[in-house]
Amino acid sequence: LMSKGKLNFDPPVIGRVFSGIQPTGVPHLGNYLGALENWVSLQNQYSSVLYSIVDLHSITQPQDPKLLRTNVLDMVASLLACGIDPQRAVLFQQSQVSEHAELSWILGCLTSMPRLRHLPQWKMKSKQKNEGSVGLYTYPVLQAADILLYNFTDQVQHLELAQDLARIFNHRFGDFFPEPGALLSSTRKIKSLREPSAKMSKSDPQTMATVFLTDSPDDIALKIRRSVTDFTSEVTFDPENRPGVSNLVSIHAAMATITVEEAVSQAMGLDTGAYKRLVTEAVVQRLTPIRLQIEQLRSDPAHLDHVLAQGASRAREVAAPVLKEVQQRVGFC
Amino acid sequence: LMSKGKLNFDPPVIGRVFSGIQPTGVPHLGNYLGALENWVSLQNQYSSVLYSIVDLHSITQPQDPKLLRTNVLDMVASLLACGIDPQRAVLFQQSQVSEHAELSWILGCLTSMPRLRHLPQWKMKSKQKNEGSVGLYTYPVLQAADILLYNFTDQVQHLELAQDLARIFNHRFGDFFPEPGALLSSTRKIKSLREPSAKMSKSDPQTMATVFLTDSPDDIALKIRRSVTDFTSEVTFDPENRPGVSNLVSIHAAMATITVEEAVSQAMGLDTGAYKRLVTEAVVQRLTPIRLQIEQLRSDPAHLDHVLAQGASRAREVAAPVLKEVQQRVGFC
Repeated sequence: LMSKGKLNFDPPVIGRVFSGIQPTGVPHLGNYLGALENWVSLQNQYSSVLYSIVDLHSITQPQDPKLLRTNVLDMVASLLACGIDPQRAVLFQQSQVSEHAELSWILGCLTSMPRLRHLPQWKMKSKQKNEGSVGLYTYPVLQAADILLYNFTDQVQHLELAQDLARIFNHRFGDFFPEPGALLSSTRKIKSLREPSAKMSKSDPQTMATVFLTDSPDDIALKIRRSVTDFTSEVTFDPENRPGVSNLVSIHAAMATITVEEAVSQAMGLDTGAYKRLVTEAVVQRLTPIRLQIEQLRSDPAHLDHVLAQGASRAREVAAPVLKEVQQRVGFC
Repeated sequence: LMSKGKLNFDPPVIGRVFSGIQPTGVPHLGNYLGALENWVSLQNQYSSVLYSIVDLHSITQPQDPKLLRTNVLDMVASLLACGIDPQRAVLFQQSQVSEHAELSWILGCLTSMPRLRHLPQWKMKSKQKNEGSVGLYTYPVLQAADILLYNFTDQVQHLELAQDLARIFNHRFGDFFPEPGALLSSTRKIKSLREPSAKMSKSDPQTMATVFLTDSPDDIALKIRRSVTDFTSEVTFDPENRPGVSNLVSIHAAMATITVEEAVSQAMGLDTGAYKRLVTEAVVQRLTPIRLQIEQLRSDPAHLDHVLAQGASRAREVAAPVLKEVQQRVGFC
């Protein structure tokens, strides 16, 4: 039957996608619309998809250990609740797959010190933190290892270093790493509800600025009601001149899975206050099942640990042969 | 019977010693008398002794992969031939125990960049190599990880950094690492046969300067005959003013397991030429069984790989619980 029938879905692309996310706890709306929603759809587009909670990266900045552990589990619960299916995607914690640190050491021996000094991430973060740690400096090398273990990535930060290191390795030890590529995912940029020129952020000091996936309907309503707009009552989409209202339109469209134009046309005749209620409704409707699912998953940390352990074991199936081949070419075995 | 009898040997000290050696291939006389002879005797003095061939460190300088692999196996063969007993000492290859790279990443996140910049090893090597790699810069952190995984070391290089990192870790995450100590082994310093102000070295461009453990009796005789002495024919021990002859006396005493005074008294009445024959005899006598054993072991790389695999598995038994505890305290699990 299958062979006669017409496929009613696009077959998965043969290929592998890797992406990492910091263990920042429960994601906010910006994370969800900017990345996680896309992660869920990549599951059906690629034959091999790996998502890593990059705890090794997170400790390049000081972390409270108890909070870090909670944040890892909350992130797993959230990813599952958002629709990451551990049968299709390999969901794992970076520190449980030793190949990341091992390959990172080898790549560090192929990276010159000045190469890292000029990366914008070091310049920025080390200034904030008064010089910073060795881990903060060498973080892009670990990120290159993350990418090269799995070949293809959903993020572009430091892709160039990974490409350079693939070339340097291949030149020294014979062709092995295909040049890693990156998806150009259409990521929506969601802004702060209080300061629509800035990105929505977990660390925003204004608690009303950020909607988290676990916010109650009342919290969501309050945050959207208090969101900064302007003195024009009509709803239009004009991010340049009307960033606040346009941000609400973006959120509305994304949450209701309609276009921006459709969102604006639904707002016709509504003043900003009434429109905010409409946006609230769309957000609450979309987030409620996710919130309930997160709450349920959070109550069973043993299950979350089990998902991570299985993910680590499957990630190692991909990473271990890559590291082994690298070790052989370097002369370790 | 045992409980009534008197112990006729010193019982092993309860404690653990770790030491690393670069995979430089067959060791020379300086390595043997400066370190390896001592390693053999430590086996009987400590309850847990681990010796690591530190290939992760070796790649901080460019290596030819085939040569590196050969050098690792030659080093294993040599260590076994010198008397390292894999039943008593854990002999392993660093890259086979992932905990080294894993702990090194975590410790790097606790090390400030300026802390490393001032270490003499970076200043020296990076000048030679025009800045050097990230691996060369962060090498002392990996060395601290080596030491902290096993607690106690036979080498003092970078011990201070390991002690600092133990303190920093304990302060941030609660007491865990005992402050690592170091053995003050009485290491003999053997000099180049051609330039007795310099240490004997594998990389000496003058081939006559260095006696390797696999040198034939003829080679040994030739190298010692050609060794630089001075114009005084009588043999005395005066390293300051007569470094060449004194180096021969040191070698003679060490190889014949007699004191320097005994060596000088054996040389009484001999001119330098005749004394060189006496030294040659002592060296050949001591090295011949070692050379034959190395040749035999070298012919069976599968056996050497087996020894390394068993060593790695035993090293992991020590290292894995240490890393696990560190990961828990950091908040990874």
